[in-house]
Amino acid sequence: MAPLMSHSVSPLAPKTYAELPPLWGVRLATAQAGIRYKDRTDVLYVTFPHGAAVAGVLTRSKCPSAPVDWCRTQLPGGTAQALVVNSGNANAFTGMRGAAAVKLTAEIAAQAAGCSPDRVFLASTGVIGEPLDATRFEGVLTECEAHADGEFPWLDAAKAIMTTDTFPKVATRTARLGDVEVTINGIAKGAGMIAPDMATMLAFVFTDAPIMAPALQPLLKRGADRSFNCITVDGDTSTSDTLLIFATGGAGLAGAPTIDKADDRRLAPFRKALDELLVDLAQQVVRDGEGARKFVTVQVSGATTARSAQRVAMSIANSPLVKTAIAGEDANWGRVVMAVGKAGEPADRDRLAIWFGDIRVAVDGARDPAYDEATTSAYMKNEAITLRVDLGLGKGKATAWTCDLTKGYVEINGDYRS
Amino acid sequence: MAPLMSHSVSPLAPKTYAELPPLWGVRLATAQAGIRYKDRTDVLYVTFPHGAAVAGVLTRSKCPSAPVDWCRTQLPGGTAQALVVNSGNANAFTGMRGAAAVKLTAEIAAQAAGCSPDRVFLASTGVIGEPLDATRFEGVLTECEAHADGEFPWLDAAKAIMTTDTFPKVATRTARLGDVEVTINGIAKGAGMIAPDMATMLAFVFTDAPIMAPALQPLLKRGADRSFNCITVDGDTSTSDTLLIFATGGAGLAGAPTIDKADDRRLAPFRKALDELLVDLAQQVVRDGEGARKFVTVQVSGATTARSAQRVAMSIANSPLVKTAIAGEDANWGRVVMAVGKAGEPADRDRLAIWFGDIRVAVDGARDPAYDEATTSAYMKNEAITLRVDLGLGKGKATAWTCDLTKGYVEINGDYRS
Repeated sequence: MAPLMSHSVSPLAPKTYAELPPLWGVRLATAQAGIRYKDRTDVLYVTFPHGAAVAGVLTRSKCPSAPVDWCRTQLPGGTAQALVVNSGNANAFTGMRGAAAVKLTAEIAAQAAGCSPDRVFLASTGVIGEPLDATRFEGVLTECEAHADGEFPWLDAAKAIMTTDTFPKVATRTARLGDVEVTINGIAKGAGMIAPDMATMLAFVFTDAPIMAPALQPLLKRGADRSFNCITVDGDTSTSDTLLIFATGGAGLAGAPTIDKADDRRLAPFRKALDELLVDLAQQVVRDGEGARKFVTVQVSGATTARSAQRVAMSIANSPLVKTAIAGEDANWGRVVMAVGKAGEPADRDRLAIWFGDIRVAVDGARDPAYDEATTSAYMKNEAITLRVDLGLGKGKATAWTCDLTKGYVEINGDYRS
Repeated sequence: MAPLMSHSVSPLAPKTYAELPPLWGVRLATAQAGIRYKDRTDVLYVTFPHGAAVAGVLTRSKCPSAPVDWCRTQLPGGTAQALVVNSGNANAFTGMRGAAAVKLTAEIAAQAAGCSPDRVFLASTGVIGEPLDATRFEGVLTECEAHADGEFPWLDAAKAIMTTDTFPKVATRTARLGDVEVTINGIAKGAGMIAPDMATMLAFVFTDAPIMAPALQPLLKRGADRSFNCITVDGDTSTSDTLLIFATGGAGLAGAPTIDKADDRRLAPFRKALDELLVDLAQQVVRDGEGARKFVTVQVSGATTARSAQRVAMSIANSPLVKTAIAGEDANWGRVVMAVGKAGEPADRDRLAIWFGDIRVAVDGARDPAYDEATTSAYMKNEAITLRVDLGLGKGKATAWTCDLTKGYVEINGDYRS
């Protein structure tokens, strides 16, 4: 998961990076701790001098990393003062030594930030099963605290947490809260081992909105279900999936109301902006899918329920045969039928209709009488492919995002020792 | 699924083919109907002049092929007189025309075999979504009936049903039934779209044992659960998975007892031989996995139940990251941990132990203190890899078989139009 070799930037990378503004109460720094990589930053340190409400969504893997265990323990406290993220080593499946390493890291960070360790949040990404030497953080985090800056470039923060990523992932949105405009900034990493189960590899969202933890948690959960839980690169769920949101409340100084309930009606614009930002970050992860050459949107409608539609969409998005066909620019809707059939959800073959883009290729359980191979083949040459399935049973619908499966994926994950 | 190009034989192919003896009451023939392929046989016709008890296990796909629908309808009858299998076209997702095509094929075969259509069993494999022109069978099956022969080479029968297969799959076993030796012959096909859900692509088993359909069905179901339902090439479940067994009862003439209950104790040796034969065929399908270079056995023990062990084993066997690591001869047990974690089954990270071959690489939730990379890397160079996981929770165990994921798989499924 953490090759030393570098890859050229994904052809699906955004043409420009969003510019993220500074946020009240958020200071950032990065450092080179030399955990695994040479000549690049591998530590991100974020401090909230005035504290921040925090909420999180973590992997449901039964073999979570030590930092995931740590965050799960600290999240009920609801308050954060520092965040430390390292790349190069996931500190996953490292036994007692892993638990000791997160404790020591939190203590070092707490000393630097001037808070108790239970206000420190941690995430690690990189190789699994290698012990992480937390003493490496000792000088590094004190140094980070000394240099941490509200004007620090967010793009550099995103770069410090990359592993097989070929580009840093950043997004920003604004929303009205009461009469005040609040800002939401987010960064993420991830390119392989992407089939988030309640969260993604690593994503961190920061806002100056004064939203308390009890309101923040359901907001984030709902947003994750519509973004990170709708993407897949390879169907493999990471041990380290972590999505955290930090709300400093700075906008309260400008008159934004303090929100402590998720059903507060004033949250509607914020919720919309947060959902958009999460989808933006999640799609960037797919756009950096290992070996990806095409960005694929899978839309399923006509399912008995939304949940059923979601499962069918993910069955299609995870199918190696569908994904290799798209890599080969082959409108192979037979494989889409296969993936619908294996999803185990209610489906009636003879009511199925399938579209590639706006071209209907199948209807009433058979090839569309108007099917034209040349038109469909031309569509498949696009970089962004939309694949739509209507099950013809009910009103449930869902969308999933994935990428094609190319020889590049096998090369990245098989052709070198990780 | 049905390329016109030919592939060289899988390096994992058996060194020799089993020699299958003639079976009393079974006559075979093949033909070239020109359905899709040129210059090769694409129709297998098997006739049981004295009838045969029949049992079957069919795909649970919600989008099954028309021949699967046909078999599901006829199986309760319990008697077969003919079997027609074609390659090149799966007659799947072909709507009303597909249903009409199986009906016409059965009628043509019934006329040739001199029986009613409900005693004809059908299977098709190849491209999905293309209408199958059943009139092609008209002269062909009459011709087959005229030439059908008990001495016909079973290997040629297996060749006629190949699609992306690089070698024909045959197996034979004998067993005592009462005081008589009975024979079981089996043929199968399959290389991609292999994640059988209650059966595999196509497999047909023939025996002269006098076992009636009510006893045959549970025997076959149990055998399929321990063989075809334990293999995966790509996690994609076919629309056409069909496993049928035909028992002519010929051994009854030599004095074998007629069995009509699955719990008849005299069945024990037959059950064992049948299970072995099904595992043999299932493993051959994995050995012909598209692009496969390594044969992988995944053994899981210490699970809370056998079913749980099976799910964990299949989660590992289906993981693209585990399979690409094996292709790269990388003993990446971190990815095994990931695959255990995502299975959704009871697991305790800190009790997990993992072996590659006889080398324990991880124990008590962390890398084995005695781990030696050189030894492990040397083991990974083998063509057959055994990967063992003990969950340390209970007594449930299971085995799954798979192959590595190579660029060859992507090439076969993506680099040409199918």
